[in-house]
Amino acid sequence: MSETDTVASKGTPPSPRTRVRRMAERADYETATLHAILDDAYVCHVAFADERGVHCIPTACWREGDHLYIHGSNGSRMLKLAAEGAQCCVTVMHLDGLVLARSAFHHSMNYRSAMIYGAFEVVPAEQKAAALDAFLNHIARGRVNEVRRGDRNELAATTILRLPLDEAVSKIRTGGPSDDEADLALPVWAGVLPLALKPLPPERVAAQAGECPDDAPDYVKAWAQRAALTSR
Amino acid sequence: MSETDTVASKGTPPSPRTRVRRMAERADYETATLHAILDDAYVCHVAFADERGVHCIPTACWREGDHLYIHGSNGSRMLKLAAEGAQCCVTVMHLDGLVLARSAFHHSMNYRSAMIYGAFEVVPAEQKAAALDAFLNHIARGRVNEVRRGDRNELAATTILRLPLDEAVSKIRTGGPSDDEADLALPVWAGVLPLALKPLPPERVAAQAGECPDDAPDYVKAWAQRAALTSR
Repeated sequence: MSETDTVASKGTPPSPRTRVRRMAERADYETATLHAILDDAYVCHVAFADERGVHCIPTACWREGDHLYIHGSNGSRMLKLAAEGAQCCVTVMHLDGLVLARSAFHHSMNYRSAMIYGAFEVVPAEQKAAALDAFLNHIARGRVNEVRRGDRNELAATTILRLPLDEAVSKIRTGGPSDDEADLALPVWAGVLPLALKPLPPERVAAQAGECPDDAPDYVKAWAQRAALTSR
Repeated sequence: MSETDTVASKGTPPSPRTRVRRMAERADYETATLHAILDDAYVCHVAFADERGVHCIPTACWREGDHLYIHGSNGSRMLKLAAEGAQCCVTVMHLDGLVLARSAFHHSMNYRSAMIYGAFEVVPAEQKAAALDAFLNHIARGRVNEVRRGDRNELAATTILRLPLDEAVSKIRTGGPSDDEADLALPVWAGVLPLALKPLPPERVAAQAGECPDDAPDYVKAWAQRAALTSR
């Protein structure tokens, strides 16, 4: 993880603190890139500060339009603080591989990450049901038409927040190692050990008479098919 | 993600801010649990604050003994601040699956997470080489004996920091959905869609005469074998 700043990044930083300085050639300020990284994520890390220090909390997330959404119980301290307008930094990261160079120094990782600065806003009561539908569709498309949707009490107990995406930056590394010229002839295996968050076979709850339908919905079948595939 | 606080957690919190209050039954303060979660990780998220706000930066990590290590260029702002003793919160999270309940409200995720509070300390110059060897062994066991190790300049350009693990907490969710009694008879598929960070086939850099050995090292062969397995 040692390349120096060289080439221009894609787009322009929306603020001083989103301008990538280390390895600036990996920075990308385009909306399409940001959306693709967020849409690939189930989870983000939310950093914020209170009187006890800085905290970094992983939580489920989904994007709709120009906002990233999170949710949870009204009792969550993080959500309470965020709802009060605390400045946050939210990060999503996909680890795509370990990059093995001939020299120890040039080892690296391939990844796609996004960082968003700002303050969350509270999703108003009348928009909560639709927001949670979008979340469920992010988890499993179409499932919103099958489950029992949230009742009045459940919706009332849930806080939903959204963060505008206008102060954000993506950072991406792809490809093999960049070894020093002098090291290229070394007899050392060099390349990438790729990683991906992959589906494993669905685990249905123990089927009891009348409890669970025999036919799994399409998104479960699709999950099982993806899980059954040998590595891509 | 709606269970209420009930059962006792494992162990006792080392500090007020590590005491899990939401879903306290998922908390685990045992060292062995913490080590297992950290040792399974290639990357952590480091949260810290400076005059421009709170930041959340993903970075490579490895554990040795009672410390979590990170490293990078001397020029990194995060490392500079952390080296100065900035209070940090470091989080590791493994997403293990999507939990599909009969009701929208009881959808959840399975995960193993660890959160560590504290201040990093600088690894002294004479310990840097050994620390980086440990990192390389975490990435690929034995590789440290094959690569060109860091020379004096490379080591001097690298900052290595370690965070004591004494103010930490793990949080784990496993198993299927916990639906309301009244929903159990609903004809809705319920269960877990498991996820795992899995190896894909190694991608060797284009082999040129004399550049790369024909025989891959054991850890690359092992990676290829794991990648070739159908989902476990």
